[in-house]
Amino acid sequence: MAQIKLIIGDKNLSSWSLRPWIILEHAGIPFTEENIKLNRPDSRDALKQKSPSGLVPCLSHGDLVIWDSLAIAEYLNDAYPEKQLWPADINARAIARAISAEMHSGFTALRTVWPMNVTRRDMNHLTTGGVQRDIDRINDLWTMARKKYGKPAGGTFLFGAFSIADAMFAPVVSRLVTYGPVALSAEASAYRDMMIALPAFKKWEDGARLEIGNT
Amino acid sequence: MAQIKLIIGDKNLSSWSLRPWIILEHAGIPFTEENIKLNRPDSRDALKQKSPSGLVPCLSHGDLVIWDSLAIAEYLNDAYPEKQLWPADINARAIARAISAEMHSGFTALRTVWPMNVTRRDMNHLTTGGVQRDIDRINDLWTMARKKYGKPAGGTFLFGAFSIADAMFAPVVSRLVTYGPVALSAEASAYRDMMIALPAFKKWEDGARLEIGNT
Repeated sequence: MAQIKLIIGDKNLSSWSLRPWIILEHAGIPFTEENIKLNRPDSRDALKQKSPSGLVPCLSHGDLVIWDSLAIAEYLNDAYPEKQLWPADINARAIARAISAEMHSGFTALRTVWPMNVTRRDMNHLTTGGVQRDIDRINDLWTMARKKYGKPAGGTFLFGAFSIADAMFAPVVSRLVTYGPVALSAEASAYRDMMIALPAFKKWEDGARLEIGNT
Repeated sequence: MAQIKLIIGDKNLSSWSLRPWIILEHAGIPFTEENIKLNRPDSRDALKQKSPSGLVPCLSHGDLVIWDSLAIAEYLNDAYPEKQLWPADINARAIARAISAEMHSGFTALRTVWPMNVTRRDMNHLTTGGVQRDIDRINDLWTMARKKYGKPAGGTFLFGAFSIADAMFAPVVSRLVTYGPVALSAEASAYRDMMIALPAFKKWEDGARLEIGNT
């Protein structure tokens, strides 16, 4: 089988790119990566050449080219069933997909007002109404998932073992340490601390520091 | 197994509600529906009681409650594998999911400027820059999908047989007949005409007329 190639944006800034990257990295699926700087005069042309939607991330595998982070995640789950990227139980899987889809189309206040900036800490941004509402909802989702599905499954991720849902929220984890302090439940703050210390997350962060020359 | 219940908004306006409804209806999966009027003083409270995210659509199946249209679609695919709601081929399925996910998180200009209004025709709205860009992209996606995956599979939907991708774009089909005329490729306009004549689509439209007293 051809090797997977993932086209991503700047590691410090591209929250969508982090999602499929951390799945591949954490699950140990072999892949190569290609980085496109997003704020250059030729970025748009470079993107259009590589990605059908003109957006990152974009995964290619042989002749197949997939251009959306959630669709890439579902493809990886299809192509590597042994990696168990969604919970095995059909009901847990439905909830994992619901919170992943909510992240995929929503939380626009948080995403707009608190852009991901992986290498920064303690920016102490204001939480405008919309941002606080988004954080409260994420806090509720993380707390619910870990209490109901995480612990009984013996794991520390949202649904026990690592799943696509963890990848979908990885950029939020990054934002919470960049812009804090934010009041979270004990469950949710333990989850944030565990995720930020994950080897795959650290590797992405190291890559971001290297890219911006801040090593 | 418990029967599926789908909570939806006004049929004339709620584009997200149409998606899982048309899957259930077209695939012949038994379900009951419950309608919440979205523009009333008590709408917010009624929604919060029924749906964890306070949004429609929301599907319940026994103890399970799922609150996002794409996650509901994936659950139906999991729970009713005999309905083959995604293409059987892994690569076609990946592309079907990519265009569905692009619809799920994107096309905001089209969605904002041309809100779904199922029963209206010939509104002749302006296509501002963003709307035309969205339409061009949808035209490209439909044309590509039908040429590459629709015809060889012997069907007339985007990927041959009916799939979740068709449901995701059903509200766009409705907008294109409400706000036209819009220039589309021969493939894409044939697809629009076929979808709008689909019995499940007609039944939703009849429901919308009944709701607004316009029968």
